[in-house]
Amino acid sequence: MTALARTPARVVVVTPAHQAPTGVVLAPERRHELVEWAREVDGFVVEDDYDAEFRYDRQPVGAVQGLAPDRVVAMGSTSKTMSPTLRMGWLVCPFRLREGVMTEKQLLGRGAPGLDQLALAALIESGRYDRHLRQMRSVYKGRREALVDALGRYAPGVAVTGLAAGCHAVLRLPAGVTEQSAMAGCAAESVAVYGMSRYRSDGRTEPAELVLGFGNVTERAISDAMRRVGPVLSGSYVDR
Amino acid sequence: MTALARTPARVVVVTPAHQAPTGVVLAPERRHELVEWAREVDGFVVEDDYDAEFRYDRQPVGAVQGLAPDRVVAMGSTSKTMSPTLRMGWLVCPFRLREGVMTEKQLLGRGAPGLDQLALAALIESGRYDRHLRQMRSVYKGRREALVDALGRYAPGVAVTGLAAGCHAVLRLPAGVTEQSAMAGCAAESVAVYGMSRYRSDGRTEPAELVLGFGNVTERAISDAMRRVGPVLSGSYVDR
Repeated sequence: MTALARTPARVVVVTPAHQAPTGVVLAPERRHELVEWAREVDGFVVEDDYDAEFRYDRQPVGAVQGLAPDRVVAMGSTSKTMSPTLRMGWLVCPFRLREGVMTEKQLLGRGAPGLDQLALAALIESGRYDRHLRQMRSVYKGRREALVDALGRYAPGVAVTGLAAGCHAVLRLPAGVTEQSAMAGCAAESVAVYGMSRYRSDGRTEPAELVLGFGNVTERAISDAMRRVGPVLSGSYVDR
Repeated sequence: MTALARTPARVVVVTPAHQAPTGVVLAPERRHELVEWAREVDGFVVEDDYDAEFRYDRQPVGAVQGLAPDRVVAMGSTSKTMSPTLRMGWLVCPFRLREGVMTEKQLLGRGAPGLDQLALAALIESGRYDRHLRQMRSVYKGRREALVDALGRYAPGVAVTGLAAGCHAVLRLPAGVTEQSAMAGCAAESVAVYGMSRYRSDGRTEPAELVLGFGNVTERAISDAMRRVGPVLSGSYVDR
């Protein structure tokens, strides 16, 4: 936060519910500091409420927007909960930004399709959107558990983090296993993963970590994939 | 065209099929001059193919894009043919602009909703979109004729232009009738019209003209409205 205050920035974009790709949740004291910062510089916090719907271990974390409705723009969308192809989302923004936001939206494309918005409204009002969220939360939770179980069994040296919410995990590789070797081993077994280096601004490969999505993979496929790549990830694989 | 060549512009946006609000069609020789200009300055013509679907008096005019596919970006949409709420359209653009256009579209909003595009594709492929266009062309043609008939009967001094295509007409008011008096008279009869001055860059009210849309008004309502405002438009109305 001190680093932020040293910059001339007056707007900051955050994903407090589940940071991509690390999966960390923004701690309560940092949320308050963020709001304090915005008040001090007369700035704004843009809260991308990404993955807030899919939280597994406890009650959903409240939005930062609730702490300071006059300083925070909260954004949500149906991209994770339904499909990115819907191209629908919403903003809750401070009143004094309202007119500017609406003007920009008009300039970008004269607004979103009306029929899609009516369909989503009907889905929400009928209670079926909430039912869908509950159902998918249970599906993703099962996949998350399958991943944790399979890693514990097949890749015991690998630490898993970022699993409090959402549909991806971060795997910290044990000493002696590089991002490059792990990725090559996964590719050889047709298991798609991302190296954490692609998300780092300096592209460094240390600490060696992988980002692994499990949202659209069945429990059986997750278990099977981890069985195949377990030796590569945990460093017990010997190239003969 | 000489005036255009004197500017540093390298891109020009035109509505050759039916200019809004005058309703004029761009003449063949001017179309060729426009393409020549684009070639000379290494520029582009953006052709908004607005109202090209609803042409009444003869065969549809070809697109300027056909004259020079490497210099013209042709744009179409479903806003007039179906509904503006669909927010769907298309571009036919020179190959060398393709990548830039796609990048910009991504930046503006990560593309258009997929389901809507699939639905429109199904409608077009089934032939029902064409059937809809033919049906609406006949409906609008009937409304256009109702307007011409009613003006001839109730406002004989008023000249009507801009009716070759689309869903609006321009009424040139006779001497002694001002834009302001005509608009006031229409408002008093709850007939919504636009004064041409709002479309003029200098806001002048001469020549006195009105722009009148007839797309969403029934033939009976058109005839009835013109009967009521005829005296005001033709200047035979006497304020007692």
